[in-house]
Amino acid sequence: MNYRLDIQYDGTRYEGWQRQKTTGNTIQGKIEEVLSRMLEIPVRIDGAGRTDAGVHAKGQVANVHMETDKSPEEICAYLNRYLPEDIGIERVSRVDEQFHSRLLAKKKIYQYRIAAGHHKNVFERKYQYPLHEEFDVDAMKRAAQLLTGTHDFKSFCSNKKMKKSTVRTIYGIDVESLPGELRITYTGNGFLYNMVRILTGTLVEVGRGDRKPEEMTDILLACHRESAGFTAPAQGLTLLQVEY
Amino acid sequence: MNYRLDIQYDGTRYEGWQRQKTTGNTIQGKIEEVLSRMLEIPVRIDGAGRTDAGVHAKGQVANVHMETDKSPEEICAYLNRYLPEDIGIERVSRVDEQFHSRLLAKKKIYQYRIAAGHHKNVFERKYQYPLHEEFDVDAMKRAAQLLTGTHDFKSFCSNKKMKKSTVRTIYGIDVESLPGELRITYTGNGFLYNMVRILTGTLVEVGRGDRKPEEMTDILLACHRESAGFTAPAQGLTLLQVEY
Repeated sequence: MNYRLDIQYDGTRYEGWQRQKTTGNTIQGKIEEVLSRMLEIPVRIDGAGRTDAGVHAKGQVANVHMETDKSPEEICAYLNRYLPEDIGIERVSRVDEQFHSRLLAKKKIYQYRIAAGHHKNVFERKYQYPLHEEFDVDAMKRAAQLLTGTHDFKSFCSNKKMKKSTVRTIYGIDVESLPGELRITYTGNGFLYNMVRILTGTLVEVGRGDRKPEEMTDILLACHRESAGFTAPAQGLTLLQVEY
Repeated sequence: MNYRLDIQYDGTRYEGWQRQKTTGNTIQGKIEEVLSRMLEIPVRIDGAGRTDAGVHAKGQVANVHMETDKSPEEICAYLNRYLPEDIGIERVSRVDEQFHSRLLAKKKIYQYRIAAGHHKNVFERKYQYPLHEEFDVDAMKRAAQLLTGTHDFKSFCSNKKMKKSTVRTIYGIDVESLPGELRITYTGNGFLYNMVRILTGTLVEVGRGDRKPEEMTDILLACHRESAGFTAPAQGLTLLQVEY
């Protein structure tokens, strides 16, 4: 049987999604540990987005092939009981044998939250990048428009050894100015390593007036990491949704 | 000059609002420390609600008499800069010399949040009491109705040596069942020591079927702490608003 898991986590304490050999402190590792204990055999799961250390998720999706007499609701309750309090399973559901959380993902939505202006949001502080500046939101919107579409995003990828295609399609970048918060929502068919964080760092530089929106076209054409802006920190980033 | 401070805090790390002789780890103490440093003389502030250790606030109000050339916006920015990240000043405003945050408060609103059902809300976990049970919400609403009004709330007060009047007026207790959360909002002219937490513990016992709603009348008449339910933990409680 193939099961889909819908997962939320506060990534603050973790070394990211992906299981590693040297540290067990990953979200994937924690979930596999509990499932393996439940079934008394080693279990491996696949996640849709390999979020970095410190990145959060409200709509991570994983799938797992396993045999059990337990109902999806029972599996969900078991996981929530034994997982740490900062990892939560929203839902477990039986899915088609062919379903693969990562390979079949059509669209991913990431959100980057920046604490802007003078407002100090004590309750959301762990999920925002605390800049507390004023930004030129219109300039950021114009830059975002130029980054939208199908492009080679090599300039926005931290992995210099990336051998596979660096072409991705961004369906939309929504820059919203809320009271005390700047929120940037990225919808795309997939994102390269650190891509959302570098896009955000570059847009912040535009918002500060350190770059012009028109530079985005040149940055894309350069196909070179150094031409883009800084990598915004992980804590402001949340994987919101994966669509199939 | 008299200034009003509108304050938010995540109470998790603190010994409560009120300054203490033995520990500097209180919200009041932290704010007084920063103001005293700013003015280079000792400053004392008055808070509307003396929240317990671990209780949060979204709408705490304090006032302070002081002389300074700084504008209210500058005082606010200074405070937010030097206060820890879990204490935030929403607003500083000049007020009438007679304004007193505690003595003139007409209405206070407290909210108690319980994680109910199987939903595990990883992002709100520090602000909810994690019970994960199913409750009889209708019974809780009937009990809440009986507790509303002007009563002697001695049964709902932890301070056994309380010499002053234990009569208070509760204008409303709103019990809401949201997805994965039970939210109880208390509006009253004032609350005794631990009163909201004991009211909540008692309502939880009603929701579990361990008590009948009709018992509320007897509990009030008993005027005895032992007749009421348990004291719900601090982490689920937030001071939402103070009205003048």
